[in-house]
Amino acid sequence: MQRVLITGGAGFIGSTLADRLLADGVQVAILDDFRTGRREFVVDALDRGADLFEGDVLDRDLLAAAIRGCDAVMHLQANADVRRGLEHPQRDLEQNTIATSNVLEAMRTEGARVIGFSSTGSVYGEPAVFPTPEDAPFPEQTSLYGASKLAGEGLIAAYCHGFGFLGLVFRFVSLLGERYTHGHVIDFYRSLKRDPSRLRVLGDGRQEKSYLYVQDCVEAMLSASGHHAGGDGFHVYNLGTDETIVVDDSVATIAERLGLAPEVEHTGGARGWAGDSPLIHLDTARIRGLGWAPTLSIREAIHRTLDWLEAHPEIALEEVPA
Amino acid sequence: MQRVLITGGAGFIGSTLADRLLADGVQVAILDDFRTGRREFVVDALDRGADLFEGDVLDRDLLAAAIRGCDAVMHLQANADVRRGLEHPQRDLEQNTIATSNVLEAMRTEGARVIGFSSTGSVYGEPAVFPTPEDAPFPEQTSLYGASKLAGEGLIAAYCHGFGFLGLVFRFVSLLGERYTHGHVIDFYRSLKRDPSRLRVLGDGRQEKSYLYVQDCVEAMLSASGHHAGGDGFHVYNLGTDETIVVDDSVATIAERLGLAPEVEHTGGARGWAGDSPLIHLDTARIRGLGWAPTLSIREAIHRTLDWLEAHPEIALEEVPA
Repeated sequence: MQRVLITGGAGFIGSTLADRLLADGVQVAILDDFRTGRREFVVDALDRGADLFEGDVLDRDLLAAAIRGCDAVMHLQANADVRRGLEHPQRDLEQNTIATSNVLEAMRTEGARVIGFSSTGSVYGEPAVFPTPEDAPFPEQTSLYGASKLAGEGLIAAYCHGFGFLGLVFRFVSLLGERYTHGHVIDFYRSLKRDPSRLRVLGDGRQEKSYLYVQDCVEAMLSASGHHAGGDGFHVYNLGTDETIVVDDSVATIAERLGLAPEVEHTGGARGWAGDSPLIHLDTARIRGLGWAPTLSIREAIHRTLDWLEAHPEIALEEVPA
Repeated sequence: MQRVLITGGAGFIGSTLADRLLADGVQVAILDDFRTGRREFVVDALDRGADLFEGDVLDRDLLAAAIRGCDAVMHLQANADVRRGLEHPQRDLEQNTIATSNVLEAMRTEGARVIGFSSTGSVYGEPAVFPTPEDAPFPEQTSLYGASKLAGEGLIAAYCHGFGFLGLVFRFVSLLGERYTHGHVIDFYRSLKRDPSRLRVLGDGRQEKSYLYVQDCVEAMLSASGHHAGGDGFHVYNLGTDETIVVDDSVATIAERLGLAPEVEHTGGARGWAGDSPLIHLDTARIRGLGWAPTLSIREAIHRTLDWLEAHPEIALEEVPA
């Protein structure tokens, strides 16, 4: 990769990837509308020569301009508000599926042929096999978010077959680490800062989840990119650790790190929200086969996240619009 | 089902289903823009009291009006021009995926909760397991058509989980029979009518396909609808016969029925076009488990199709726009 466009390049993963690529001497363009991306995350990248294209990935002209001259696109922009999909039933379609189609079309027109895509373990729905491998039985979607990402994967695969693209699809677990701005750790953190005496947990607290440290995620994406450099075809990689953690243990880890002992109240049920998975545990043998391995455990990644939130109260404690 | 909207209700499958539902005493609404649907296919249905909503399924107001008062939608409208997906890379997205999302949203708003969906065996891509069951390993899409239908399936599944819909997804092989207006039989038929001495066949002629008679398909959809009546959840059924036929044998069957002996010329390669499947053979044990079985063999269905084309030269031999 000589010059890479990162959509969502001011976001949690995108900005981390941008910094890493720049450090490796790769030219970087960043497309972001700063709805969830943050300007402070790209200050360093812009100082180091990254180009910024500010606006919506659904803006076709902007997208074409951003892709022009790039040989690869890391398409990380997405609506990641998994839990509220049902409140805006077409938002995931627009921002994840249609946006991905527009990216592919702009790539085809501008001559870029390599795409990396941030998919999700949610595409497995509620799988029957754990840890879940990439070729698990045909899944049933349980969330609009998962459905929209699966649709994006399908579009990428069709472009690989039809137009000779190289497509690298990364099915993530949830990520943790520096620049983390949404998800259960920040929700719990904010709640405990407001009231350290109690914490309300969606579901029964026994949902079993997997997490990955953002730097380990970026390293995995680069491992796969290097492995397939110059090739084509459609390649899927699960990205996660080989551990899981139940929500209650996650809460205990957070509380302990913050020196708190809140009373935990469960809302009940096996799922925190419609489409929540009671168990996420991905088989990562395929990406490990490329020599990659995570450097941090889930607990260490939670600690790293909390330390970063403590050091960035302007983000950690900002008012979240309803 | 008391009152059913059939999108694509003037098409090959849709109009056949409309006639059957009306014969069963079900109220029918038909939505069609007559781009590929045909007025002569719905003359009888309209005479018997079906309501016609003429226009594009992407017209949200029309869609809402058509769904109003219906308890179920059979969503059969689609761009079915599988082979030319690469010439219009966003057409399948618009007419299959976005259209399906709009149908689901209109259903949610209008209070309809049951959807039947014409998916395709193409969602299996090039599967590793034959005959291919519904829970085959996680597929890789090889065509924009398959990708767009898989995306539609995912949206339906998410609505079943999120909004309590009943979703019935039918993964068809290609269909044959009365009112057949596009596909290899009509292509070969037209070519042989122009020049009975020779026939050009895409690929090596060894592609192995499966076909189903349209009346058997409609019967299967009604079997599944009856079985799940009053329930909810997401249910997938392969629809096909337990046979396959190679393209060359299909050609021989057609030539013999027409009393011709053309010289067959192959363009070569295992695939007729990018995204063509060298082998389609679906496992239909699940739908057979509901007591359904096809009544016609593939050869009989080809004969039925040819007889209908011979009786309808105004359709069989019309000029096809490029």
